[in-house]
Amino acid sequence: MDFITKLETISRKHNSLVCVGLDIDKEKMPPSLFKTCNDPYLEFNKALIDETMDLVCAYKLNMAFYEALGDVGYNLLKKTIEHIPKEVVIILDGKRNDIGNTAKKYAENLFEQLHADSITVNPYLGSDGVKPFLEYQDKCSFILCRTSNKSAGDFQDIESGGKPIYVHVAEKVKEWGKMGTCGVVVGATYPEELKVIRGLLGEDVPFLIPGIGKQGGDVKKTVGFGTNSRKELAIINSSRGIIYAGSGKDFAKKARDATILLNEEINKYR
Amino acid sequence: MDFITKLETISRKHNSLVCVGLDIDKEKMPPSLFKTCNDPYLEFNKALIDETMDLVCAYKLNMAFYEALGDVGYNLLKKTIEHIPKEVVIILDGKRNDIGNTAKKYAENLFEQLHADSITVNPYLGSDGVKPFLEYQDKCSFILCRTSNKSAGDFQDIESGGKPIYVHVAEKVKEWGKMGTCGVVVGATYPEELKVIRGLLGEDVPFLIPGIGKQGGDVKKTVGFGTNSRKELAIINSSRGIIYAGSGKDFAKKARDATILLNEEINKYR
Repeated sequence: MDFITKLETISRKHNSLVCVGLDIDKEKMPPSLFKTCNDPYLEFNKALIDETMDLVCAYKLNMAFYEALGDVGYNLLKKTIEHIPKEVVIILDGKRNDIGNTAKKYAENLFEQLHADSITVNPYLGSDGVKPFLEYQDKCSFILCRTSNKSAGDFQDIESGGKPIYVHVAEKVKEWGKMGTCGVVVGATYPEELKVIRGLLGEDVPFLIPGIGKQGGDVKKTVGFGTNSRKELAIINSSRGIIYAGSGKDFAKKARDATILLNEEINKYR
Repeated sequence: MDFITKLETISRKHNSLVCVGLDIDKEKMPPSLFKTCNDPYLEFNKALIDETMDLVCAYKLNMAFYEALGDVGYNLLKKTIEHIPKEVVIILDGKRNDIGNTAKKYAENLFEQLHADSITVNPYLGSDGVKPFLEYQDKCSFILCRTSNKSAGDFQDIESGGKPIYVHVAEKVKEWGKMGTCGVVVGATYPEELKVIRGLLGEDVPFLIPGIGKQGGDVKKTVGFGTNSRKELAIINSSRGIIYAGSGKDFAKKARDATILLNEEINKYR
């Protein structure tokens, strides 16, 4: 099954564009887990997945949080992925990038060994650094186009030929998108940019949209500008706002409640 | 000791700007290692380090090649780093990038757990994605400015205000460089760009220069344009040209010979 079909199928089944970001962080996790569990991180992720898997279209795992754990991080990543139901989209968010022969090695790890459905890729190196990722059929590489952070504009807003760099990137994505394995990352914190990029890329390119919740992105505009005309193909991520909604023993239930609320808010505008 | 002092000290002691890139790749490694060793990758790296450590200023480990090995990759990276003499500069080449709170997690892993002296960072996210790396005193973050690959120009050459994007990046590096913990990556395959960037950044910013050898960069121009006025602060990397110079049992000796040759060629122009 190709990526778009997988995404549409699960989004429709769960009536959801919500992606939960499993960004494990000891300082924010329920302290009780570290007293009672052998493997607190895995138990945390499993409990969150068990409580939310009927409510989401995707899970996103930011690799930085796993790598920060050192040698145990890789297996935690692997075991967490194994716990996610096959029908739900898995996004490995590593923002990888390198020259061709090296990018191929990253792709092997992310797609073949870790079995991600999709990943994030930084476009700064240009086409030949991106292509090794796009060559995987039935997978999707989300290219950083407009990021959600405050300094995003430092380079992404530099204008050339009447268009900022992020539009130049979007235009390349349009070209690469013909392979059918390419999406974009656009931050919810920049709704006007989101509108421009969806306008340019049309109906069939999936958008990964971080930045709502703690980062302050507006849900109404995110849905209005980020989805296609069927109000689909946008994956709206929330990490901290969901997984750290509670810090007591009922953290997973609190995360479920936060997911339901977010999904309802999103669907109000679809 | 700050990074610049460490780099200058070892470069002078070994009279060398050479960096050996330990990019392990089963398909290119001596087949005999896989028959005789318990841990062929580690033995390969150890043999290469033992034969070249008196000839180089730095070792660069591209993380993609280690991650491609799955769960054993992290410990291999760690054990290889432990085998490198303390006086030699260690560069972890992961081209990491993310928003502030997440970039911090990458920095923790690379600098605190893996004990890299320096790393590579992709600048596309702008200042707040780069700063968490720069805050480590005595470390250096090499910002991708002009990469060595063919498609580098796709975005890096886009002109704005009479200057291509890679110059805009270099200008930011000049600003960030005031913290004393910032360098640049510029490919040897683009000597004119190297000249422009060294001209802009002056005497005190270290340059990491990949792209000679297999990628075709010119040594004379690399030395002429990449070093400062004392013919220092350039780290000239060769990976495949050195570590796969031989594929027999004498691979490490062949790597030593290739390192000596490259160092002599570089020093001819200093």
